[in-house]
Amino acid sequence: MRGVWLADKTLDVRDDLPDPDGGDRGEATIRVLRSGICNTDLELLRGYYPFAGIPGHEFVGVVEEAPDRTWIGRRVVGEINAACGTCRACIAGRKTHCEERTVLGIVARNGAHAQRLTLPLANLHAVPQGVSDDEAVFVEPLAAALEIQDQVEIGTGHAVLVVGDGKLGNLIAQTLKLTGCELRVAGRHQNKRDLLEARGIRTMAAKEVRPGSFDVVVECTGHPEGLTIARAAVRPRGTIVLKSTYAGDTRVNLSSIVVDEITLVGSRCGPFPPAVDRLARRLVDVTPLIHATFPLSSAVEAFQYAAQSGVLKVLLDPEH
Amino acid sequence: MRGVWLADKTLDVRDDLPDPDGGDRGEATIRVLRSGICNTDLELLRGYYPFAGIPGHEFVGVVEEAPDRTWIGRRVVGEINAACGTCRACIAGRKTHCEERTVLGIVARNGAHAQRLTLPLANLHAVPQGVSDDEAVFVEPLAAALEIQDQVEIGTGHAVLVVGDGKLGNLIAQTLKLTGCELRVAGRHQNKRDLLEARGIRTMAAKEVRPGSFDVVVECTGHPEGLTIARAAVRPRGTIVLKSTYAGDTRVNLSSIVVDEITLVGSRCGPFPPAVDRLARRLVDVTPLIHATFPLSSAVEAFQYAAQSGVLKVLLDPEH
Repeated sequence: MRGVWLADKTLDVRDDLPDPDGGDRGEATIRVLRSGICNTDLELLRGYYPFAGIPGHEFVGVVEEAPDRTWIGRRVVGEINAACGTCRACIAGRKTHCEERTVLGIVARNGAHAQRLTLPLANLHAVPQGVSDDEAVFVEPLAAALEIQDQVEIGTGHAVLVVGDGKLGNLIAQTLKLTGCELRVAGRHQNKRDLLEARGIRTMAAKEVRPGSFDVVVECTGHPEGLTIARAAVRPRGTIVLKSTYAGDTRVNLSSIVVDEITLVGSRCGPFPPAVDRLARRLVDVTPLIHATFPLSSAVEAFQYAAQSGVLKVLLDPEH
Repeated sequence: MRGVWLADKTLDVRDDLPDPDGGDRGEATIRVLRSGICNTDLELLRGYYPFAGIPGHEFVGVVEEAPDRTWIGRRVVGEINAACGTCRACIAGRKTHCEERTVLGIVARNGAHAQRLTLPLANLHAVPQGVSDDEAVFVEPLAAALEIQDQVEIGTGHAVLVVGDGKLGNLIAQTLKLTGCELRVAGRHQNKRDLLEARGIRTMAAKEVRPGSFDVVVECTGHPEGLTIARAAVRPRGTIVLKSTYAGDTRVNLSSIVVDEITLVGSRCGPFPPAVDRLARRLVDVTPLIHATFPLSSAVEAFQYAAQSGVLKVLLDPEH
């Protein structure tokens, strides 16, 4: 089959990749309809993780083969962490933290930038008819955005700042807006801020943020500088939600975190059902985030385009 | 009056300090019976904060003068943050985070290593008869230990590690032990570990800590290396409580905090009433932590002794 191959910080498109067969390990085989390029994919290419294989973890596809045949022919999205079910984390119910997990297109498992992929049935979620292929690709990052609400109480009366106006920042802002909180987004890109303003979300430049005035600050810039902005913005006893992953350490003044009794919460993958629900009920609008769709055969160019400043979501279409 | 004077990282004892008069600003004037040397005092001496004046924030004393005369003659301990009552933090009920606060012996307010100090009446708590002067000095750090339980749910079934076997680590361990959690303390000093073991608290060396096996880890070593141990010990989605304050930044891999969805909670001053209660009911034993009591006139020697490795609490007696 055709797919993107990543090794040694180099990307190319191959037509000779073996067709994956989920049956070999009791998994479903899925024909990919669309995949989305995430910042994590770009970080993998920069060597953030030592991953070699097919990248990609945002996708929508159709089940071609499955141990339970009722799944065959259904349009699905898939949770990216494949859990062992027997380790300490799995037994404690934290399957996304399985100690033996493989992660679609990220850790020891080929991903979605290909014509086919495999995943356990437990990871799959059917996509309702009213949700288009382009929209369904956003279920995974939308779930990651919704994880914040599983971790931190946010609602009416809370002053919340999202630092970062990129793809994830936009989804986080749209999902937080639904909680009724008093929401602001600090961002550097006028075109991205315009998208948010069009959804009724107020934006500002980082320098306009009043210090110590937010109950909750979500840092999703993808850069260490984002934490500096978040730290200044949060009030004493407030919470900073960390969403950025990038290579290297960050210098943090931990004593000031102690003195101001700040809480920092790392936040990664989230729940799929509410993400599907938000799309199906049209409570969030993801299509303005799509800046381009490339055929899978042009994935190298698609990655280059996605890495440019100001570009939001880039999709790959494996059928062309 | 006699008191310790700190300026330009130098400490000396002066006999010519002006007698403070709380009446000038509607505060109580308190004759100090005992004060305790805290690691924060030692950090102030190293220049952690640019404080000049009388250090000391752990004390017990007798009210000599007060706007409300019913306080006169009572033995008291005092909360160290003097709040304005009108800023955003005060109005929100976070008085220990008052934006205009002065802090006894730490920020813009003379402290307890002297014959007298002043504090607002709102900061004072009467000490029950059954609690000795030596014990009462520990109310402030005990309250700081109990703050953890106000911030993080800890109880039966939780595996909790305290990293640090010093003064604060001991108090934290003793207060956490009362919650019924499964408690361990990682420490480097056999004499300090023996004190904990004598209270039925199991201790270990840091290298014996099983990675990823604790729900909650409290870091109170006072050193950046403490966080490395805490980070390794906590399980995914677990919580690290930060208690250490020290000068300078710490390098932290924030991406791993995101991936493992760790929560970091800064924790500072805590509630006095439950601290007094734990002492009055003899649920914690603080007297074994007292390694020496020096007369106030020998405060310079007392500070030098307190800074030695292996030494726990050193008290000052202003009456001798």
